[in-house]
This record gives sequence, C-alpha cells and structure tokens, in this order.
Amino acid sequence: MRYLKLTLAYDGTRYLGWQIQPQGPTVQGVVEEKLSLLTKEEIKVVAAGRTDAGVHALGQVINFATRSNIPLEKWPLAANSVLPPDIAVLAAEEVDESFHARFSARAKTYVYLVLNTPVRDVFWRYYAYHVPGELDLAAMQAAARLFEGTHDFYAFSAPGRPVKDYRRTVFACRVEPLGGGRLKVEVTADGFLYQMARRIVGTLLLVGKGKISPEAIPEIIASRDRRLAGGAAPPHGLFLKEVHY
Amino acid sequence: MRYLKLTLAYDGTRYLGWQIQPQGPTVQGVVEEKLSLLTKEEIKVVAAGRTDAGVHALGQVINFATRSNIPLEKWPLAANSVLPPDIAVLAAEEVDESFHARFSARAKTYVYLVLNTPVRDVFWRYYAYHVPGELDLAAMQAAARLFEGTHDFYAFSAPGRPVKDYRRTVFACRVEPLGGGRLKVEVTADGFLYQMARRIVGTLLLVGKGKISPEAIPEIIASRDRRLAGGAAPPHGLFLKEVHY
Repeated sequence: MRYLKLTLAYDGTRYLGWQIQPQGPTVQGVVEEKLSLLTKEEIKVVAAGRTDAGVHALGQVINFATRSNIPLEKWPLAANSVLPPDIAVLAAEEVDESFHARFSARAKTYVYLVLNTPVRDVFWRYYAYHVPGELDLAAMQAAARLFEGTHDFYAFSAPGRPVKDYRRTVFACRVEPLGGGRLKVEVTADGFLYQMARRIVGTLLLVGKGKISPEAIPEIIASRDRRLAGGAAPPHGLFLKEVHY
Repeated sequence: MRYLKLTLAYDGTRYLGWQIQPQGPTVQGVVEEKLSLLTKEEIKVVAAGRTDAGVHALGQVINFATRSNIPLEKWPLAANSVLPPDIAVLAAEEVDESFHARFSARAKTYVYLVLNTPVRDVFWRYYAYHVPGELDLAAMQAAARLFEGTHDFYAFSAPGRPVKDYRRTVFACRVEPLGGGRLKVEVTADGFLYQMARRIVGTLLLVGKGKISPEAIPEIIASRDRRLAGGAAPPHGLFLKEVHY
C-alpha cells in the first residue's frame, strides 16, 4: 500500500462545497470518483479543509491510500487527464501512513478577494466580492492586525455548529491592495472555526466602511457576541491558499 | 431621440457569440432584451465587433437610439441593474446620429492570452489557451512585429467567408509576458478578417514551438496560402479590448 498526498486547485463555483452530500456535485465526490476510475480501486480521500459551496482552492491538500503503481511524477498528469477542467492536481508526494491532511496540518492560509470598484467586473464575478462604496484601507489594515494572536473566536463562529474550544491562534491577518481596486485579505491560523475567515472579512468590511473603528476589534473578540461582528462575507471571494505541515 | 454609445465588458463563455441567432443565447440578444426592458422601447443595437462564441470583451462598443430620459451618468448603473452578471456597461456617452459603432471605428485592439505552464490552471480555463510545452518568446516577439503594416491577410482568413478586399493595416502586434506563465498577444488593426486575430495567434504559436521561423511570416503573408499559416487558436483566449474612434 502507498500513501499519497496531493495538492489540488479547484474552482468551487459549480460545487456544493468539498464534502460529499446527496443534493448535488461536490469536489470530494468528483475527486473520489475520478481517482477510483484512474486506479481501479475504491479511493476515499481526506482533505485539509472542508470548503463551503462556492469557495475555491489554490492549494487544498488531500491524502489517501492506494495500491496503484503509477509513478509519483506521473500522478499530476494522470489525475488531470481524468479530472474535470475545474479541478486540477498541482503536486503529488509520497507520505507516511500516519500523515493526515487535516490533523497533521500546523496551519492553513485563506485568501479573500474584495473588488472595490464602482462598477462590477464580469470576469471576477465568481472570484471576488464586489463592494462598490469607499473603503478605508488603512483602517482595515490596522484592524486586521488586531485579529492576530490566540483568542476565543466565538464571536466569529457560525451559530448551530458548536465546538468544544473556540480558541484559535491567528498567525497573520493582513489586508493588501492588489491594484485595479482589488483588496486581498490573507489570514493564516492554526485552525478556522466554521465561517471564521468570512466573518473576519465581514467585520473588516464594517471597519472599511467606517461603521466600526479598528479599536473595536479586541472588544468584539472579548465580547463573545456574534451580533457585534460583521456577518459572513459571501463564499465566492474565499480561496484556501495553502496548508502548512 | 437620443443617440447613445455604451462600452461593454462581457464574459463570452455561455454565449453563442455577439450576433443574434436562433440556436441559443447571444450577447446581442440579451443586451437588446434588457435595454428594451429598461427603456420600455424596442432597442436595436449596433456593435463594433461581432465576437464569436466564447470570445470575451473588455471594451466592446455599441450604439442605439432611444427616447429614454435616463440621465447619461445613470446609464451604467441602470443598465447593470437589468443585465446578467456576465455582461456589464462600463461607460455611456451621447453621440451624433451619424455615429456607427462599427463603421466609425478607426481601429480595434484584440488581446489573446496564452497560459504556458506545465499544468493547466482551473481559474484560467475559460480565459486563456493552455499551451504546456516550451515556447520561444523572443522568436514569437520577432515574428509578431512582422505582421505590422498594410498587407493582404488572405492566408489568415477563414474559408467560406469571402470578402472583396483582404488588405488590412496592422498598427501593432506585440507579445508580452505577464508573469505566471501567461503570455499576452495584443493586435491593433484598422479591421480584422473573420478569425484573423486567432489565426495570427495560431501562427505565432507555431513560431514559439520552433515549427516555423519568424522570417517565414512575410512569406506566409505573401503566399496567400492558408495551409502555410497556423490554424485559428481557440476562441476562449480572445478578448476585444478596445475600439478606437
């Protein structure tokens, strides 16, 4: 038996998210079906992050066991020959049996794109959240830094998905202009609560619009009150950029 | 009666091209339907370039007559509120009755994107032509310049669409690396034969792959022989960038 780790990119637009569900196509469903076809085995995969419907990946990581003797360096091309055009394998590595894409991860980086232009851009409609009004970039940048550190992120969690421990460590949270009105929010943390990245972005947008000040961020974190934070920014601006091991 | 000129961007992916046809959705069909809805008139538009199925626009120009009293500065927002997310009005101007989006144009600029990376990129699948092998950029750049000038472009025209005069003037034809393996081919000409931009790109790719030398370009032009030129590069890499008046 061989244990493989694949790095995937996908466009989440036409999927109901990563995780298999009966209502429609999921990235996991398609990946398992196509890798099974390729290897003539029943492949079950584990992913680092269970991205939501519409969320994209630049560097999702999966692992699985296989008896296939496809040489390691042929794996990306072989897998891409069976995968649909909106899912691609970028890299393949052989790992230990103990490697687990999710539990072995030390940190993950998510990127969120905001398109801050007066008119919407047809080419970014599935890949960036269009926010037409003025945004105070310096205030957003100051606020972003205040998410860094180890905090209880209950105020940035989604209702109805209780977990034991709401503490997470945000290693970096930065806002960077990319030109053409695009803003990139990049967050690296040891783990993310469900919707946490999108709720951080939603809150940074409240700061950008001047509805709350950067100084309010530590108070909102401390409050453990979801009503004080911004709602979740829409999924289509979010990308799982990288998983760190 | 008022005469309006609108600049449009659209993602051509889900359309059968610009021009109305009965087999399916076209950009012209949707634009006329939505502008008619907005103005409560029957709007008929003229476009600068009749883009093919899958071809995109960053700056298509249309003109039409209307009795609508929507103020000029409100036109983009008003039109975008009725247009689908893959078509957007970028600008509106009032013009003379004599203005004709196609016949008044002095020149048009098309851009073609090639993605020259080993692995395909899921996010560029509808917006760049993936060419995995090595490409000789310097040779492509030298060849591109040899398209400039006034020539008979018969060898770069599509069969079955005869026109009286195959002469066109190419003001500029340049190949530029954009980073990340992307190459941009930009062609400005006083007019384009059907598929001419894509056949120039197809021929530049033959040069890039070392199958013909840059010096062959003037010979191919002079030959008036379509078999010597490259085939048309696929439509999804092509963008109508700008129309010059």
